[in-house]
Amino acid sequence: MTVDLRVIRELEAIVGADFVRTEAGDVEPYSRDATPTFRAVPDAVVWPRTAEEVAAILKLATARHVPVVPRGAGSNLCAGTLADRGGIVLVLTRMDEILEVSSDELLARVETGVTTTALSDAAAAKGLLYAPDPGSRTVSTVGGNVATCAGGLRGLKYGVTRNYVLGATAVLPTGEIIKTGGRLWKDVAGYDLTRLLTGSEGTLGVLTEVTVALLPMPASTNTGVAYFPTLSDAGTAVGAIIGAGIVPATLEFLDAKCIGAVEEYAHLGLRSDAGALLLFGDDGAEDVVERNLTRIGEICTDTKAMEVTLAENIARAQALLEARRCSLPALSRLGTMTILEDATVPRPRLAEMVGRIDAIAASHDVPVATFGHAGDGNLHPTIVVDQHDDDGIKRAHEAFGDIFKAAIGMEGTITGEHGVGAAKLPYLTDRLGADQMALLRRIKAAFDPAGILNPGKLGS
Amino acid sequence: MTVDLRVIRELEAIVGADFVRTEAGDVEPYSRDATPTFRAVPDAVVWPRTAEEVAAILKLATARHVPVVPRGAGSNLCAGTLADRGGIVLVLTRMDEILEVSSDELLARVETGVTTTALSDAAAAKGLLYAPDPGSRTVSTVGGNVATCAGGLRGLKYGVTRNYVLGATAVLPTGEIIKTGGRLWKDVAGYDLTRLLTGSEGTLGVLTEVTVALLPMPASTNTGVAYFPTLSDAGTAVGAIIGAGIVPATLEFLDAKCIGAVEEYAHLGLRSDAGALLLFGDDGAEDVVERNLTRIGEICTDTKAMEVTLAENIARAQALLEARRCSLPALSRLGTMTILEDATVPRPRLAEMVGRIDAIAASHDVPVATFGHAGDGNLHPTIVVDQHDDDGIKRAHEAFGDIFKAAIGMEGTITGEHGVGAAKLPYLTDRLGADQMALLRRIKAAFDPAGILNPGKLGS
Repeated sequence: MTVDLRVIRELEAIVGADFVRTEAGDVEPYSRDATPTFRAVPDAVVWPRTAEEVAAILKLATARHVPVVPRGAGSNLCAGTLADRGGIVLVLTRMDEILEVSSDELLARVETGVTTTALSDAAAAKGLLYAPDPGSRTVSTVGGNVATCAGGLRGLKYGVTRNYVLGATAVLPTGEIIKTGGRLWKDVAGYDLTRLLTGSEGTLGVLTEVTVALLPMPASTNTGVAYFPTLSDAGTAVGAIIGAGIVPATLEFLDAKCIGAVEEYAHLGLRSDAGALLLFGDDGAEDVVERNLTRIGEICTDTKAMEVTLAENIARAQALLEARRCSLPALSRLGTMTILEDATVPRPRLAEMVGRIDAIAASHDVPVATFGHAGDGNLHPTIVVDQHDDDGIKRAHEAFGDIFKAAIGMEGTITGEHGVGAAKLPYLTDRLGADQMALLRRIKAAFDPAGILNPGKLGS
Repeated sequence: MTVDLRVIRELEAIVGADFVRTEAGDVEPYSRDATPTFRAVPDAVVWPRTAEEVAAILKLATARHVPVVPRGAGSNLCAGTLADRGGIVLVLTRMDEILEVSSDELLARVETGVTTTALSDAAAAKGLLYAPDPGSRTVSTVGGNVATCAGGLRGLKYGVTRNYVLGATAVLPTGEIIKTGGRLWKDVAGYDLTRLLTGSEGTLGVLTEVTVALLPMPASTNTGVAYFPTLSDAGTAVGAIIGAGIVPATLEFLDAKCIGAVEEYAHLGLRSDAGALLLFGDDGAEDVVERNLTRIGEICTDTKAMEVTLAENIARAQALLEARRCSLPALSRLGTMTILEDATVPRPRLAEMVGRIDAIAASHDVPVATFGHAGDGNLHPTIVVDQHDDDGIKRAHEAFGDIFKAAIGMEGTITGEHGVGAAKLPYLTDRLGADQMALLRRIKAAFDPAGILNPGKLGS
């Protein structure tokens, strides 16, 4: 136990005794996040309510060298919020107020414990769109989204979370509360700390408030689906769509194994004889959406699609999107442990990479299915194993190691949108090189001299 | 002289004697950039050709504690590329190769000495758009654009340079060559060094190559102009346009003094009786552009516009844009020294801020005219004085000090797109606070332990 009783009493003095927990039964839920196979039991779980409370906690932790792991909903898939070195898990879900939604300025200001969906809904109520839509959005917090620079299904046209963070309030590990950026789209006063904190996975500071950019809500949105004999044909279609000057909001794919699993799970009426499914969607003025989707459909037909269907109504469009969104739960039913990864390659190499993934999985004797963001080259290869099959789990991890190597070899990366966490830190040097890793550590030390904030993750 | 002869000989050994200059006549052009009143004569000017040469130079400079100031075209307006502490000006314009333009991947890879226009033209030749379009684009280098996170006339819809940098090759002050990011839109492996380098004004590393995102070239673009009795009316129109869910590519304004100066300079047929001119433009499918501009025109008419004109052809649209682009040269004719600034406020406070600027200028007895990006709240108040009038120059700088304070007081910033440099470093603490300034210095030290890279600028 790295947190002694005196520290516990001080934590209670800061946040109130109700919001500090050390009993085994109370801390157990915080020993895991959404990442399978990783587990670490914290010594204490603390729920602060204000930035000032967070500052007092971090000051104390730095003075006593106690690890602090910030956490939102814990829906991350990279073991990014586990207390590997013990210490305190700092849960930010009590800080869940939507402080402001401004139509005039196209922005929202929220505490970081707000869920992504709550932010989206509050924006939508004023006719505005919060563009990032990560898969876990109904439970994930905005703070967690910013800390991991979360992506989502609209990334191709709209970009990822980093493009929408205008400003942040962050508490430094030494207790200072800083405000980076603000309410402006254009502000170059100082180093871009807003972006440096975005994607820093809770290792540089604890985000307590963010200001995010909103957009006018598009007047309409629609979705279509195309089936292809092979994933390579689908890849050709994606290249032709982009080549025709169309960058739709959504361009997602499922491989044959995913299609089968999704159909068995959700009975959406998907074809079982296709090698790949391409889901495409766009939003904007109704006639523009109609025109873009029709053109995409034609391009798919011209590039060997077996069948192309545009959703005839909103309900059907939602059902098609559901095919993509339920890929993970559908695959999860095939075993008792689902390990989903996030390798990314340049867009034209998507099909080649899926071929490599299949070959790698076969060589390690593990079943794999792959879905993901075709427009971004962002793949989610998913291996399903039995949670009691230690050797199977070991083979799965070895397969992912090879998959990461293959992605890097294609000028790709080990994570497009899920984060590094503890799960992928062992592969990060392969991606960045030793010089850049050393620089990351020096930056980490510039923020966190005592190394108390989420140790064992980025910057370690 | 901080650079002794031994160092000069070593520099010559690295880049060749032709590319090292120390004679007064040779270094004089590098004693200024585009910022009036600032001047600093370097000891030497060096033109490297490769990242490896840059690495050797920086390693030498760190070992000998010689300041190095990286420079592209020197078109910045913040005294960001002057050798205030002597030493070497490192001119990157020989590194001007366009290495790749990929239609498949919608990206370009260029050496950083390439001009913005050369990059735009190379992209356009393949039917692609490089979205950032800073005012100095015909001479400015892409490296300079990235180092200052340059904006431009299309920022409202397309965002600024930071949104388009996918990857960078940077040489650290200690000589390591690192590659950040790469060819991917989504890549969260490690801290976002790409964005940290973007806008770091040459204080953290020397950029030698960048990979930037391109977009399909919009099928059409058009422009319109509206005249208003007062700037406040124009501000109301801007709010109503955004409120109607339209985010056009361009939404620029000129105040009455700017309109007069531009008309006198360029004879574009602008009205002389208006209090403000609003220039609006959009791009995309022809019918969508037509529809958006018509709607914007209607909104302007509904919000007290005296007159609204849509350009009837491309030549006329270019002429209208020219009204905005020539604001700076037009104002420059009114005196022998033009000091242009870059304060930014939240969009709804634009007219209020211009009112404050006028009052501040009057109280300091200096003439001011203001134009800028109405959609972003990004203002360019411009004071024209006689270059021999020391007292007038002093009063101009005092006025800008008050303008920056006023902008900060309105939740704005001291620079939206031009950078901090030496010119605005004295005001940066007011914007960021002492804690954040200290953090900037620690980050600077993490990159540049000897403090040789562009000293006296950000991180100092």
